[in-house]
Amino acid sequence: MTSESELHHWEDFVIGERIPLGSKTVTRDEVIAFAAEFDPQPFHLDEDAAKASLLGGLAASGWHSCSMLMRMICDGYLLNATSLGSPGIDEVKWMKPVRPGDILEAFYTCRESRPSGSKPDVGICKLHYELVNQNDETVMTWDCNQFFGRRESGAGA
Amino acid sequence: MTSESELHHWEDFVIGERIPLGSKTVTRDEVIAFAAEFDPQPFHLDEDAAKASLLGGLAASGWHSCSMLMRMICDGYLLNATSLGSPGIDEVKWMKPVRPGDILEAFYTCRESRPSGSKPDVGICKLHYELVNQNDETVMTWDCNQFFGRRESGAGA
Repeated sequence: MTSESELHHWEDFVIGERIPLGSKTVTRDEVIAFAAEFDPQPFHLDEDAAKASLLGGLAASGWHSCSMLMRMICDGYLLNATSLGSPGIDEVKWMKPVRPGDILEAFYTCRESRPSGSKPDVGICKLHYELVNQNDETVMTWDCNQFFGRRESGAGA
Repeated sequence: MTSESELHHWEDFVIGERIPLGSKTVTRDEVIAFAAEFDPQPFHLDEDAAKASLLGGLAASGWHSCSMLMRMICDGYLLNATSLGSPGIDEVKWMKPVRPGDILEAFYTCRESRPSGSKPDVGICKLHYELVNQNDETVMTWDCNQFFGRRESGAGA
């Protein structure tokens, strides 16, 4: 169990630093299982249909890529942070297909940081996330606001 | 098998019309299974931890809500459309927690439509999606661009 003081707090983000979050190999079984449950378009399910599509071959659902990145974020730092959730995503860009066999690396960069105007024990970061494949191609990015607990309350400051 | 002419093409979107896509009941097992695989933050996995969190009770991962909506989109019209994919999402808003037992209804509204500048057989729509719960609360929205095949090519027009 991580003690409270060891958790990554709002104050611990360094603006502009690009932080690696680990890597993951994408499997065909995972791509097809996710698509079968959540996004059964032929180019996410079937190799022949995918070859005939604009994607040129089997590719993960964009929502699967988001979900895989979310897991890398959890394992990379969020489960050891004072995370309080997120109100949403500013922009998701699906830039390249994610293929079975791809080895994805994830990164985040804190671009802005400010204390909450209404909650003295909460801070807000604007974070940029990247998913990069084994050919050094950025396959997906998203930008979002996230809430984190503060080490020291800003009340009365 | 749907014949080509029966598919929903780019020309078939009517700007401003709000189209229902069906409904889905969220189960506790689904919420926990998705979180265990993709977003194992305590408030998505454990009832007691969730009660102590800002969410006030077990709630689906935001990415699970996106994935459930994607499935409703597929079943609601996309699998019978000339869908050519999407380059990304302009904005995702997670407005209210999605709880086990919630009955979600999905809707889309086409807000803008234009032919592709470079591909005469492709059109682009800006679509607004909504997920609404049994209390008529909008729990999530997203806006995105999507590509669709055209009934009639604009080449030479």
